[in-house]
This record gives sequence, C-alpha cells and structure tokens, in this order.
Amino acid sequence: MTSTTHHETQIVSDPDVPLVRIVREFDAPPEKVFRAHTDPELLVQWLGPRGMEMRIDHHDCRTGGSYRYIHSRDGEEYGFHGCFHEVRPNELIVQTFTFEGMPDGVALEKLVLEDLGDGRTRLTSTSLVDSFADRDAFVASGMDTGVVEGYERLDEVLARG
Amino acid sequence: MTSTTHHETQIVSDPDVPLVRIVREFDAPPEKVFRAHTDPELLVQWLGPRGMEMRIDHHDCRTGGSYRYIHSRDGEEYGFHGCFHEVRPNELIVQTFTFEGMPDGVALEKLVLEDLGDGRTRLTSTSLVDSFADRDAFVASGMDTGVVEGYERLDEVLARG
Repeated sequence: MTSTTHHETQIVSDPDVPLVRIVREFDAPPEKVFRAHTDPELLVQWLGPRGMEMRIDHHDCRTGGSYRYIHSRDGEEYGFHGCFHEVRPNELIVQTFTFEGMPDGVALEKLVLEDLGDGRTRLTSTSLVDSFADRDAFVASGMDTGVVEGYERLDEVLARG
Repeated sequence: MTSTTHHETQIVSDPDVPLVRIVREFDAPPEKVFRAHTDPELLVQWLGPRGMEMRIDHHDCRTGGSYRYIHSRDGEEYGFHGCFHEVRPNELIVQTFTFEGMPDGVALEKLVLEDLGDGRTRLTSTSLVDSFADRDAFVASGMDTGVVEGYERLDEVLARG
C-alpha cells in the first residue's frame, strides 16, 4: 500500500440549521478527486467503511442524472439512491440521498471542491435534512466511521492512480 | 369559466428549520391533482402567476428524472430546473428546485397529497433550503402571489377536466 499523509476529517453539526458539514483535504488535484466521485469503477473502491462491498445499480453522474448502489456485508444489504441536481466538473456536485432502510427520509447534499494549489484539494460536503432530530440520529448512527474510513480508502485510490 | 369553491392557501415559515410549508385543499381526487403536476400539457396551464407564459424544456416526472421550464412575461425569461428524487403516483413528489437567476441556490421540495374523501385532496408542499436568510428572502420576493394565483388556476384546470 502506498503511504499517504494523514489528514483529519472534520464532521460538524451546524448549530442553526439541520445540516452536517464535513471538511477534508486530499493530496491530489480537484480533477482527480472529482473523477473518483463520478467514475463508478473508482467509486466502488472507496465509498463507505472498510469491509463493505459496494455494487452499483446505476450511477449517471451528470446534471439531471440519478444513481442507486448497494452496500453489503455478512449477507446484509443496504440500498441508497438519489438524483443529481447539478454536476459542475471538478467543482460541485449537488445531489439527493435516501437510505432505503428509511425510505421517507431524504437529504440534500452539496459537495464542493477547492483547488489549494500544489496538487491539493479541500473537499466540503454538506448534508441538509428537515429536522434536527433526524440530523442528530444520522450523526449518532456511526456515519462518522463510514466517512473517515471512506476518505482513508479514497487517499489510497488517489495515491494509486 | 367554471365556478370553483374558494380555498385558502396557507403559507407558513417554519420557526425551527429554514423551510416554507404550503397547505391547500382541492375539490378533486388525488389522482387528478397528481396528474396536473406530472402531465406537461396540464402543468403549463396553471404553474405560476397569472399572465406568465410557461414553456417546458423537458419534464420527466419519474423517480430519477429531471425537468427544466421557462416562465416569460414582457420579454423577460426566468428558467427553473431540478431533478425528481422520488415520485409515488397520487401520493408524493420529492424534487430539487433552482431558479436560474440564482444558480447557486437550491431547494429540496416535498409534495404530499392526502385523500380527504368525497373527491377532495389536501396538498402539503414543503421547500427546504440551507439558510434562514435565503428562506426569508424567498418568501419576501412575492412567491406568495405566484403560489396563490397558481393554485387558483389549478382549481380551474381541475374543474375543466
């Protein structure tokens, strides 16, 4: 495995609106970080916690497209789906997100990539829902493990490519 | 013009989250109210304030579909677009919404139809954004006129069909 610099993942619950904000830097330019989010062959290598298998039903990452994928571990399956509201190459992805175990829940997610120069990128991801109780339950559910491990796996994908 | 019962449109800004909730009853069953939202030929007859022309670029109202339309009046054009996160016939439409005059703004909208019996429907529409300032600016922009007049026009479409 290629060694990578350790970067902290910040996960902050907004005090004013029911939103979670995730900030993470990567040692790769925005083009590569963007491609790792949009190319299904790369996405399956890192999205989610370690030990989870990911299968993509469809992933049409363009403005007006949609996606569905399934995470599985130990015979349990977890489906997720949404639509892509807006995709601006190397800059922005705005999408919806539903965990199919809670089919009436939906989040509005915004991913912003900033070019920090020297082949580095700052990723800011926000997830907005319509109640503080749902936001807090999501944060308490262990999503932080999936996010932190997922971004460590993404470091590895970026270092390989 | 067919006469219709007068129904009040409630427009309420939520005190806790940056969301606007609209509630309106219609003298038609959910199937008809739903169809007026999903059939482009009906939609252009009522969506928006009186005196506004509506042109549909595309309107693929199904889970994973997308839409774009243009309102015009006196030579001014206003574009709107989004994607359909989930569409459950006669019950629910969850979609995103951007006014192209503010291309970085996006709302998550949820439309719920309840069957009140006797050929009546209660529509509840919520629109969620990520800041109270943006929500309050939207409400102050005169959106209420467009909503109230649009639903009066929808009453007329439902009475005709």
